[in-house]
Amino acid sequence: MSLNVLKQKLKIALIQVAAGGPDKNANLSRAGSFIARAMKEQPDTQLVVLPECFNSVYATDQFRKNAEVVGPDSQSFQFLSRAAREHKVTLVGGSIPELEPSTDRIFNTCLIFDSAGELIGRHRKMHLFDVDIPDGITFRESDTLSGGSSSTTISRSFGSFGVGICYDIRFPELAMISARRDAFAMIYPSAFNTVTGPMHWHLLARSRSVDNEIYTILCSPARVPGGGYQAYGHSLVVDPQGNVIAEAGEGEEIVYAELDPESIAKMRRSVPVTTQRRFDVYKDVSSDAK
Amino acid sequence: MSLNVLKQKLKIALIQVAAGGPDKNANLSRAGSFIARAMKEQPDTQLVVLPECFNSVYATDQFRKNAEVVGPDSQSFQFLSRAAREHKVTLVGGSIPELEPSTDRIFNTCLIFDSAGELIGRHRKMHLFDVDIPDGITFRESDTLSGGSSSTTISRSFGSFGVGICYDIRFPELAMISARRDAFAMIYPSAFNTVTGPMHWHLLARSRSVDNEIYTILCSPARVPGGGYQAYGHSLVVDPQGNVIAEAGEGEEIVYAELDPESIAKMRRSVPVTTQRRFDVYKDVSSDAK
Repeated sequence: MSLNVLKQKLKIALIQVAAGGPDKNANLSRAGSFIARAMKEQPDTQLVVLPECFNSVYATDQFRKNAEVVGPDSQSFQFLSRAAREHKVTLVGGSIPELEPSTDRIFNTCLIFDSAGELIGRHRKMHLFDVDIPDGITFRESDTLSGGSSSTTISRSFGSFGVGICYDIRFPELAMISARRDAFAMIYPSAFNTVTGPMHWHLLARSRSVDNEIYTILCSPARVPGGGYQAYGHSLVVDPQGNVIAEAGEGEEIVYAELDPESIAKMRRSVPVTTQRRFDVYKDVSSDAK
Repeated sequence: MSLNVLKQKLKIALIQVAAGGPDKNANLSRAGSFIARAMKEQPDTQLVVLPECFNSVYATDQFRKNAEVVGPDSQSFQFLSRAAREHKVTLVGGSIPELEPSTDRIFNTCLIFDSAGELIGRHRKMHLFDVDIPDGITFRESDTLSGGSSSTTISRSFGSFGVGICYDIRFPELAMISARRDAFAMIYPSAFNTVTGPMHWHLLARSRSVDNEIYTILCSPARVPGGGYQAYGHSLVVDPQGNVIAEAGEGEEIVYAELDPESIAKMRRSVPVTTQRRFDVYKDVSSDAK
């Protein structure tokens, strides 16, 4: 365990864009214009985050149609790589439907690019959103999607961060694994809805932060009234003490925040849970996780 | 994983009493009178919870002086056993300083009695409260206490519950272990303070509930203005959806609640995280925990 998991102050931007319509070209274009705006408004941004399923409609019967084989021939791959390179930022590329040709399976996948536009990581949503809330919402991603089979921690010069997608946040293990591998933050491109959002969005983000004494970053699509799936919005950043330090409303908006190494170190000195765990009694879930 | 971890509706009472003064006889007597009052006000109560260190002063230099060897000769053991038997309740006996003669070590220990007054479980606080919050609070239980070395899940006819003590709640593993062993609740006799209480009391309780889809029960001492350690109060019950269903203020008060098996089952049917975990990727921390 280290106090200094974040090596420098880090400016970030969360792109809460309405880019989940049926026209993929329009979606990518809109996301691109928002990234450009973020870089203009906060030029020293080093990390940009897009929302879950930002390039297409979030619906089980649409994933296959919109799925891309990840690689240089993929339209969304090209877009993300170019945006990262052009703006010289680490880009957590929300998520896109991904086709794995060898198995014909579809995944809900986050691609991460470095500031040279190189792909440096891929997180396939591991826990699929299969819920059935009476008088609320029913959704079954597993009707058409497959779940990924590994956790994701990305190492950069400024520090490491973990990546999960939306429903993954309900499973504390992913944040425990990345944080114990010295991540300074968990980043979840997410699309909670108007039922589960008010119930648990802030609570889950804050608890991942406090249990692990890290930043937690959720980036949602903007809500589009009259559309299909109603995203919750409220993209936010929670500090290691559990305080929401930046939060969007429901419409299109860019959330800016500056992450501070001292915020992590101070919390870990004050309430040193990261050194007090009892791995003689229970196992460290990060020790042999994939 | 089962939906029916609680076998019946269960009425509980949390005794938020000011019983941490220097006179142990007075402390036990006051706790006893509050238990009697709870049984009068809610006669069908089946489970009663007392606060952390309810029989003596919560201070590192007082633990040894007040420590008792657990057994029929212990004054606090006798009190708890008699109270459980007299009122025919399962009694989660807060915590008391315990001396282990063979090692001369002191523990912060919760004794659990059945409705016949038999000792059915003992939880020794596993994670010691060693914190140093600038301009807040500094406390080092480890100056005089030792930490326990096993998690605690108690099985009763109405279902099983896990027990932790106060700072233990900051370590998600204990709740994960008990819940995965079919506990319907985590019960934490606790004494957060006026610094850490406002920061994290509700958040930690609600997150243990939501992550595990169980009840979470925190029982605090009442705050005693002008005394030494200022307990936060706010004893509370959180349901499996993360809602606070009963909560005390800061003074002496009894919190009553009825736990409902359907509340657990409904949450687990709606958002079935208890069946969606990915133990092919990360280990189940409950599988080989002590």
